[in-house]
Amino acid sequence: MKEKVDLHKEQFLNELKEFLSIPSISALSEYKSEVNKGAEWLGEALKSAGMEHVEIIETKGHPIVYADWTHAVGKPTVLIYGHYDVQPADPLELWETPPFEPVIKDDKIFARGATDDKGQLYIHIKAVELLLKEKGSLPVNVKFCIEGEEEVASPNLDPFIHEHEEKLAADAVLISDTSFIEKGQPAICTSLRGALALELELETANTDLHSGSYGGGVPNAVHCLVKLLDSLHDEKGRIAVEGFYEGVPEVTEELRKEVSEIPFDEEATKAELGLDSFYGEEGFSFKERTGIRPTLEINGIQGGFQGEGIKTIVPSQAHAKISCRLVGEQNPQDVYNRIEQHVQNYKPAGSKVTLNQLIKAKPVSLDSRDLMIQKAAEAYERVYKVRPLFPKEGGSIPIVEVFSRVLAAPVVLMGFGLSSENLHAPNEHFHIENFTKGIETVCEFLQDF
Amino acid sequence: MKEKVDLHKEQFLNELKEFLSIPSISALSEYKSEVNKGAEWLGEALKSAGMEHVEIIETKGHPIVYADWTHAVGKPTVLIYGHYDVQPADPLELWETPPFEPVIKDDKIFARGATDDKGQLYIHIKAVELLLKEKGSLPVNVKFCIEGEEEVASPNLDPFIHEHEEKLAADAVLISDTSFIEKGQPAICTSLRGALALELELETANTDLHSGSYGGGVPNAVHCLVKLLDSLHDEKGRIAVEGFYEGVPEVTEELRKEVSEIPFDEEATKAELGLDSFYGEEGFSFKERTGIRPTLEINGIQGGFQGEGIKTIVPSQAHAKISCRLVGEQNPQDVYNRIEQHVQNYKPAGSKVTLNQLIKAKPVSLDSRDLMIQKAAEAYERVYKVRPLFPKEGGSIPIVEVFSRVLAAPVVLMGFGLSSENLHAPNEHFHIENFTKGIETVCEFLQDF
Repeated sequence: MKEKVDLHKEQFLNELKEFLSIPSISALSEYKSEVNKGAEWLGEALKSAGMEHVEIIETKGHPIVYADWTHAVGKPTVLIYGHYDVQPADPLELWETPPFEPVIKDDKIFARGATDDKGQLYIHIKAVELLLKEKGSLPVNVKFCIEGEEEVASPNLDPFIHEHEEKLAADAVLISDTSFIEKGQPAICTSLRGALALELELETANTDLHSGSYGGGVPNAVHCLVKLLDSLHDEKGRIAVEGFYEGVPEVTEELRKEVSEIPFDEEATKAELGLDSFYGEEGFSFKERTGIRPTLEINGIQGGFQGEGIKTIVPSQAHAKISCRLVGEQNPQDVYNRIEQHVQNYKPAGSKVTLNQLIKAKPVSLDSRDLMIQKAAEAYERVYKVRPLFPKEGGSIPIVEVFSRVLAAPVVLMGFGLSSENLHAPNEHFHIENFTKGIETVCEFLQDF
Repeated sequence: MKEKVDLHKEQFLNELKEFLSIPSISALSEYKSEVNKGAEWLGEALKSAGMEHVEIIETKGHPIVYADWTHAVGKPTVLIYGHYDVQPADPLELWETPPFEPVIKDDKIFARGATDDKGQLYIHIKAVELLLKEKGSLPVNVKFCIEGEEEVASPNLDPFIHEHEEKLAADAVLISDTSFIEKGQPAICTSLRGALALELELETANTDLHSGSYGGGVPNAVHCLVKLLDSLHDEKGRIAVEGFYEGVPEVTEELRKEVSEIPFDEEATKAELGLDSFYGEEGFSFKERTGIRPTLEINGIQGGFQGEGIKTIVPSQAHAKISCRLVGEQNPQDVYNRIEQHVQNYKPAGSKVTLNQLIKAKPVSLDSRDLMIQKAAEAYERVYKVRPLFPKEGGSIPIVEVFSRVLAAPVVLMGFGLSSENLHAPNEHFHIENFTKGIETVCEFLQDF
């Protein structure tokens, strides 16, 4: 299959560039028509690949793209999931080339969505296309279910899966939206953290006030917010919200050993990020903190005057965006309620606080001994000549838990990204080697039944 | 003089509307040409009023407008100072009418700069014009020195005054840029707090990071900034920067009495601002906190994702803007150094902080028994039928201290604003009654020599 992939490599990359040039940012409403364009483009790509019953299914948010090919009588069915939406691109000034003008440099393709998830998703479309063109048929039944709302936590895919259990029924769900351990070392992720995201708005007076006339005498919304946010962690880096750790599994020696077996170069990572030291919950390693422990991070803060120079006001409004990663039996709704309680208990006198929940997803755990996961491991091994590892990922793909529960099918997280590929950050990119080898690996996997 | 003012009232207000429609925002560099337009407009207004030697003097920043009329041989010279620049207008969405489209409603004129300071400054131009038109001459010598950088702390007026001591020489400096106690109760301010303003930038990693892969394991710039800023005040609302209070005068019973004599309706102010309670340094009243005590206020904060929805990043950069009001013998440079030391001592591990000083002005104290101030008090009394009070203002007009020191002349702070007129805030306005009575009062004052 390698020869076939190499033969079409240039053409496939040109197509991917076209896909990446669509700014399908799901979080920003002004990009609505671009997200739709992404779905349309994808539908055409699936048709060209030879998939059948291609549908662009409208939802309350962004469309879901469905397609299938189900002529492999008596063979298993693989449901391939991915997402065509991308993260916002700001801060724009930190991009070396524009985020939606894909560029190939040093055997990497640079663009927003290159690794998360358009590049990884496109691997599957090209794998299916090559198999269909070669033999006129596929070795298994294949369904595609591709959403445009992964970056905003899949609000409409969740009910869609519940309503279309039969249409989506499969023997395995195959997803490429995770990372290798490092270049050349593939990985099949067996655990994903849950997620919770919220916005917090704090108000004091009914207007901004002159700091000369009122400063020192009235509550300042930024001071109040700063005090409130600082109360969310204690001096040991632990989350100070009462009851937050309920449902978090005990970190046993066995679990610690399992985590520590995944190679990680602490010094190299620090150097790469420009950090003198890591930071986090006392008593845990970096891999434990980011893989098996829950977190609470402020993703953004804003209040008062933002422009050039100074404006001597006492701000009356301030905002923060917060997200948590959850593990084990932590329930996102319970954690949200705990945070709301904390905020009401700790908000400084003179301030009013309102919360707005944005994302809610349960943690998920997969069994590496499952047949499907073992077959995926063998496919990797045949292409990359090395056995994949089975790490526990710190990130969240909220829909994995829903697929796994509703379809009662094993989920195979067959990632082709690298964690160094700046996903969610400026200068996102994808290694072309993993794009082409990815196509080979997926072909190997599908042909193994 | 009342009849003359009434006769021309409509014309004067139309002229003021024209002046207010120029968005001469000194802090924002994209408004540079509008600030220049403000200076040009003012030059023409001074010429029309009959002033001589009108000059638009370029500086490194925005121009200074100068004019004089010096034919009153043997009479004292009054130097009138004001500023034609205004504060930025954001948040725009909170304005009921556009900030640079002046509107008259309920006997008030609404626009950015209406009370601070275009409306108050224009009083003097119209007073001089009426006197010159009536008698062909002025009862005293008058000089105007009007700047376009008051809202950015007068960086170029300070050296200009030093270099033009002789040109600006005067027996009194007359300034209308302060407030009444309340409607109908004029005030001559006898003390202004000093000011210090700075920007703080905090950095952690060299890029924003995915909160799934790195959250909980690396320093978060917003967490670090929140912790650092929260360390600036203690639990009792005192500023926790070591040595900050050096040079702050003891609050004696006499000083407390003086402050408490200025009427202030605590409940009405709370209701007007939508506040349940005031807030500030323990052991001091609202008037003390905002008049004779120093302050440290965060004027703005920003970091991480600001858009709609959520972006699950660990931010690597965060910024804050901070300003202080200073009293007594506090030295702005010393206070800046103390804050810098505090920031370096308290910045959380893994963060780098840089400071940038924006404003620096010494506190100033004036003697209410001075002859010029007493004459101003009499002028108010003749027009308003009530004796003005002599409050200590919480605000800063950095140049007052420089005028007073370099020209060795008493400064008369003859304000016509009201503190409720939303200066530095949305829906700034100016009471037309104080505009017309202001013209009468200034005529009375100038005719008293």
